[in-house]
Amino acid sequence: MDIEKRLLQGDKRACARLISLFENENKKAIDIVKRNYSKTGNAHVIGITGPPGGGKSTLTDKLAKELRRRGKKVGIIAVDPTSPFSGGAILGDRIRMSDLALDSEVFIRSMGTRGYLGGLSKATQGAVKILDIFGMDYIFVETVGVGQSEVDIVKTADTVVMVMVPGLGDDIQAIKAGVMEIGDVFAVNKSDLHGADKTAREIQTVLDFSSKDRRVPVVKVTARLNEGISDLLDEIISHMKYMKESGEINIRRKKNARTEIISMVERELLNIIMARATENNLLETITNDVASRKLDPYSAKDEILSILEK
Amino acid sequence: MDIEKRLLQGDKRACARLISLFENENKKAIDIVKRNYSKTGNAHVIGITGPPGGGKSTLTDKLAKELRRRGKKVGIIAVDPTSPFSGGAILGDRIRMSDLALDSEVFIRSMGTRGYLGGLSKATQGAVKILDIFGMDYIFVETVGVGQSEVDIVKTADTVVMVMVPGLGDDIQAIKAGVMEIGDVFAVNKSDLHGADKTAREIQTVLDFSSKDRRVPVVKVTARLNEGISDLLDEIISHMKYMKESGEINIRRKKNARTEIISMVERELLNIIMARATENNLLETITNDVASRKLDPYSAKDEILSILEK
Repeated sequence: MDIEKRLLQGDKRACARLISLFENENKKAIDIVKRNYSKTGNAHVIGITGPPGGGKSTLTDKLAKELRRRGKKVGIIAVDPTSPFSGGAILGDRIRMSDLALDSEVFIRSMGTRGYLGGLSKATQGAVKILDIFGMDYIFVETVGVGQSEVDIVKTADTVVMVMVPGLGDDIQAIKAGVMEIGDVFAVNKSDLHGADKTAREIQTVLDFSSKDRRVPVVKVTARLNEGISDLLDEIISHMKYMKESGEINIRRKKNARTEIISMVERELLNIIMARATENNLLETITNDVASRKLDPYSAKDEILSILEK
Repeated sequence: MDIEKRLLQGDKRACARLISLFENENKKAIDIVKRNYSKTGNAHVIGITGPPGGGKSTLTDKLAKELRRRGKKVGIIAVDPTSPFSGGAILGDRIRMSDLALDSEVFIRSMGTRGYLGGLSKATQGAVKILDIFGMDYIFVETVGVGQSEVDIVKTADTVVMVMVPGLGDDIQAIKAGVMEIGDVFAVNKSDLHGADKTAREIQTVLDFSSKDRRVPVVKVTARLNEGISDLLDEIISHMKYMKESGEINIRRKKNARTEIISMVERELLNIIMARATENNLLETITNDVASRKLDPYSAKDEILSILEK
């Protein structure tokens, strides 16, 4: 049967296959997403981020299980920013989720930072769309959150959950206001450890300086013991309710659409430039001149741009 | 006096000021670099990278001091990829270098990952050019090396030094071949620690599978105790000698020039398109349509690109 039909009929394997095709910029996959784009926008997309060691994958795992108990369909995209120096160690984390993976109403996908033709952000956004068309009620995008690119990925969610842990101590002051700003809900995980109350209070103090209209909740949880998970989920759902009632969801989704369109335009532009600049050997000639210091790179840029105007 | 003249006469403050202006995409600063571009290409640019905790800044510090003993002028650009979660902790590292900073023949500059209009890579390359025009014999570009963007920065150097430490153990197997590949010289720092020989051997084993024509040296050093620094520096200088004799320096610099030109063209084209797309409200209209699911983002991208053809 046709992959598009299978996707719409709820075949998880079709979903997995389509995401893979999409990652490789397969035209057929992109066309399927285009045709079914009007079916997107129904899922509640939840970003999960925070410093390394915060237990984010366990937390996502437990939130997904709680949603299953409530009869919801759940997709999970785990972004593993395989550091060029650490390799794929993080993938091991996902193995814990294997009992969830057996659930027919749950779809889990890991994505590394390498090997995506169109960049990880694009691949993640594509996977979210496919899971949305597939009919997931909730889609988690979990990142290990070590760098700006991971923060950029998670920012495209409807609700961003920042996962902290006790013992960050004075470091909490060092957390950039700009990053705190992206959190819609804060979770202090590993709250059975000493200092959880102090950490929660410190987060609250930083949040007091926030410019947001809405109070940002700080929820203490211990994901490993499944403590506080239901409360955290309620806060996440409550955030979406607020977003819809206040109309903020439209503002946020518009902003995300804008960012996505611009980055696609940027990428395609690069392809166009490369095609034209290489076709008459111009790029080669200019590059030689710059490398031999006959021409400076700024004038080189202007020369290439002038061709495009022709 | 004119800043350009002061730069060419060796005024360090003019150098610092010009780098700041350049970071802010000041036209005058760009013009100065353009006018003096033929004076670049003389400095030996050395990239220093490797996993966090490798003692890279101490190592750079000691290499710079050894170069000073040999009567050379040294510039250091320390790229601090301020993690969105860690803040500016790394800046503290640079304070250790204060005795170097007092040296009139040494210029040190820290660059964070935020607040650069044209991206960190562009700012770093600009600073390298200014230091090159200024007359530095050696320019270090040191990155904490946690992500792909830092690797991209260091790749633009003439010689890339990968700094490892004992105790990476089995993890060395996990280090991606693609990253090992960028190292021209390997330094095993903290070689007074247990396991330095084992680490050096393991690196060598990985390197044995390398496709490079030249043997990649692995040097054991203990930067803190200034041990092995002179040997390491000799290997770095020897790499440049090899690059020049084999003509590989031209290939590498051409490749870097190409990457730099393309990224500048890309950036400027995007600015042009965005200016056009916002001027007639097209971007706004299209974004609204995408956010409300009337239009898919792929078709939106095509519509915006069609502006270029007009």
